[in-house]
Amino acid sequence: MTQSQAMIEYEAFKQLGLKLDMSRGKPAPEQLDLSNPLLGELGSHLAADGADTRNYGIPSGLPEARALFGSLLDVPPAQVVVDGSASLALMHDTLAFAMLYGVPGGKPWSLQPVTFLCPVPGYDRHFSICESLGIRMVNVPLSASGPDMDMVEELVASDPGIKGMWCVPKFSNPTGAVYSDEVVRRLASMKAAAPDFRLMWDDAYRFHYLGERRIAMANVIDACAQAGNPDRAVVFASTSKVTFAGAGLAALASSPANIAWWQGRSAVRSIGPDKVNQLRHVRFLKDRAHVEALMERHRLLLKPKFDAVLAQFDALLGDIPGVRWTRPEGGYFIDLVTPDGCAKRTVALAKEAGITLTPAGAAFPYGRDPDDRNIRIAPSFPSLPEITQAARGIALALRAAVSG
Amino acid sequence: MTQSQAMIEYEAFKQLGLKLDMSRGKPAPEQLDLSNPLLGELGSHLAADGADTRNYGIPSGLPEARALFGSLLDVPPAQVVVDGSASLALMHDTLAFAMLYGVPGGKPWSLQPVTFLCPVPGYDRHFSICESLGIRMVNVPLSASGPDMDMVEELVASDPGIKGMWCVPKFSNPTGAVYSDEVVRRLASMKAAAPDFRLMWDDAYRFHYLGERRIAMANVIDACAQAGNPDRAVVFASTSKVTFAGAGLAALASSPANIAWWQGRSAVRSIGPDKVNQLRHVRFLKDRAHVEALMERHRLLLKPKFDAVLAQFDALLGDIPGVRWTRPEGGYFIDLVTPDGCAKRTVALAKEAGITLTPAGAAFPYGRDPDDRNIRIAPSFPSLPEITQAARGIALALRAAVSG
Repeated sequence: MTQSQAMIEYEAFKQLGLKLDMSRGKPAPEQLDLSNPLLGELGSHLAADGADTRNYGIPSGLPEARALFGSLLDVPPAQVVVDGSASLALMHDTLAFAMLYGVPGGKPWSLQPVTFLCPVPGYDRHFSICESLGIRMVNVPLSASGPDMDMVEELVASDPGIKGMWCVPKFSNPTGAVYSDEVVRRLASMKAAAPDFRLMWDDAYRFHYLGERRIAMANVIDACAQAGNPDRAVVFASTSKVTFAGAGLAALASSPANIAWWQGRSAVRSIGPDKVNQLRHVRFLKDRAHVEALMERHRLLLKPKFDAVLAQFDALLGDIPGVRWTRPEGGYFIDLVTPDGCAKRTVALAKEAGITLTPAGAAFPYGRDPDDRNIRIAPSFPSLPEITQAARGIALALRAAVSG
Repeated sequence: MTQSQAMIEYEAFKQLGLKLDMSRGKPAPEQLDLSNPLLGELGSHLAADGADTRNYGIPSGLPEARALFGSLLDVPPAQVVVDGSASLALMHDTLAFAMLYGVPGGKPWSLQPVTFLCPVPGYDRHFSICESLGIRMVNVPLSASGPDMDMVEELVASDPGIKGMWCVPKFSNPTGAVYSDEVVRRLASMKAAAPDFRLMWDDAYRFHYLGERRIAMANVIDACAQAGNPDRAVVFASTSKVTFAGAGLAALASSPANIAWWQGRSAVRSIGPDKVNQLRHVRFLKDRAHVEALMERHRLLLKPKFDAVLAQFDALLGDIPGVRWTRPEGGYFIDLVTPDGCAKRTVALAKEAGITLTPAGAAFPYGRDPDDRNIRIAPSFPSLPEITQAARGIALALRAAVSG
C-alpha cells in the first residue's frame, strides 16, 4: 500500500456521507424486541408471597428476583440485592458509601488518599466514577487471561492506600479478556496491605456469548471466602444487555457482611426499588434456562455483526504492520490496536467519514492511552449493512492514518 | 374519667386481639388500584421524539416526563430532571454529592462540620439522611403556617456552618402545616452566612388534598430567583402517592446552575433512568388536569379514614387536658399531641393492643422528642373499619397512659 492509495480509498469512502454512531455498546432494536413481552399486560401485581409490588417496601428486592439473580450468579439469594436498572449506579454507590462511611473492616476512604488498580484497556465509566470521587488510578496491563497478577500482587501487598481494583472478569470491555481460574484464585487469596481492599467485580457479560464455547468461571465470592477474605469481592450484574438496556434490573452480590452493610446504607437512601418491574422480569425471564435461551437469540443477532467487522479488518488490515485486533468469544466489543500514536488520528479520520467511535483513550484512566493505540469497536447497535460499511470505513481510516 | 375506668376500657379493647400496622404513610390497595392501567400493555415504546425508551440514554428523563413535572411544579421543563421512583433517593444523593463535591458556590461539605435546620415535628427519613451523613441537626419549632422564621433568620444569618434546611412546605409530615407566602418569601430572601445554603424543599403533598380548599403556594424557585438567591431551593416531588408508591417517578427541580450540577454528578452514576416507566406514566397521567382528577379520587378514598380518626379522637379525647391533634387539609398524617411525657407510653400501650404506630420521637432528629408528646397517625393504609377501631384503640391507650 502506498500513501496515495490509502488516501484515495479513504477519500472515496468519505464521499459516501455516512452518519453512524458506534461509540457505545448499545443493544440493537431487534435485540430489545426479544424482550417486548415486558411491555405487555402484567397480570397480577402480587408477588409470590402475596406482597403488593406497587407499594413501598421490600428494600432488597422481591424474593423471587433475588432468587433468580442468585441462580444466575451462583450465590445464595440472601447474598443478593436486586435494585433498579443500572448496575453502574450500584457500583457508584458502593464507592460513594465507601468514601463517606468506609466498608466493613475499615474507616471512611475519604480520610486518606485512595488508589484503585485499573486493568487496561478497561471500561471508561468505571474510571469516571474513580475520577469523580478523587480515587487515584494506576494502570495494570490486561492480557487475554486477566490482569498482570505479579504486578497486582506486589502493589496490593505493599501499599495500604490501594483500596480496590476494577475487574470485568468475563469478556472484558473492550478486549474480551476472560480471567483464568488461576487469576481468580490469586485475586481472592493475595495478601492485601489494606484490610478493606475490595474487588469491584463487574460481571456484565456472564451470559453474553458470541462463539460456541461456554465458559464456567471460578466463583469469586466462594474463592474469597475459601481464602479467608470473605468480604473482598463485590459482584455486580444487570439485565441491561439481556432485556432492556434502560429499563432492566441490576443486582449486587457479596458476602453476608457486605450485604448487611449495603442494606444499612441504602435503607437511608430509598424505601425500596421498583418491584413492579422486578415482577415483570421474573415472569418473563423465569429461570436460568430461559435466560440462557434468550441470550442465544441475542447471540444469533450479534455474531454476524462481529463477523462482518472481523472480515473487513482481515481483508483491509491484515497487511499493516503493528495492527491487530481481538476476536472475542463474548461481550460487546472488539479492541482494535493500531501502531503506536495512530489511534487518535484514526478516530478523527473515521469521524470525518461520518463514523463516530468511542474517543481514543477512553478505555484508560483519565482518558490517556499512553501509547495512543487502542480503539474500542462497538458493533452491536448498527444494522448488518451499516456495520459492514462502518468497519470498512474504520479500516480505511486506519490505513490512511498509518500512511499519512 | 377515673384511672380505673380508663384502664378497664383499654384492657377490654386489648382483648380484641387486633393486628394493625399504622407506622407508615402507605397508600391503601384501593388507591393503588386507581393507577392499574400502568400494569397494562404499553403499546409503542417510542417516545414523542421517536427515542427508543428501552435503550440506554436520556439521563435527565424523557422530554415529555420533564414537561409533565414542569407543568405540575410550575417550572420550565429544562429546570426539571425526572428519575426513578424515589424522591428520597434524589434528596439523599443531593446531600451525598454536596458532602463529596460541594454544591455550586461552595466547597465539599465534608471538609467542615455541617448543620441543618429541621422544623419539628418533621419527616423521620429526612433526619435519617442527615444522621447517616454526619450532618448535625437543630430543631426549629413548626407552626401551622411554617417554621419559626425569626429563629431561622437569626441562625442562618449568623452561622456559616448551617448549610441547609428541610422543608415540607405543603401539608407537612406529620402536622399538615402549610407554609404561608410570607414564610416562603422570607426563606427565599433571608441573609445566609453560608453562600451555599440550600432549602431541601420536599414538595411531597402538592396535590394531596383531604378537604375542599385548594391552596396555591408561592413558587419557591421563583421567589429565590427574585430575591437574588437563584440556587437556594432544590425542589423534590414524586408520584409515589399519585400512582404507585414503589414504582412511580421522582423529580428534582431547581435553578439552571443546580440542574447542570446535578446532571454532571448523576451522569457518573447512571446512563439513564427507566424511561419505559416514564412513558407509561406520561401516557397514563397525561397532564395536570388528569393528575388533579386522579388526586380527587384519592381524596375520596382518604377523607373518610381521616374523618373516622378525628371522630374517635373527638369522642374519646376531647375531655383530656393537654391533648390535641391536627385536622389537616391535606397530606397523609395527623399529629396527635399528648400531655408531656405520655407519647412513648401511649405508643407502647397501643402496641400491646395490636396497633403498631410510628415510634414516638420519630418525627424529631435523632428520634428524640424533647417533650415526649408527638404521635404520628397514618390513616391511609388500613380499611375504614380497621382505622375506626385503631383510632379508638389509640385514644384508649392515650387515656390509659395519661391516667396511669
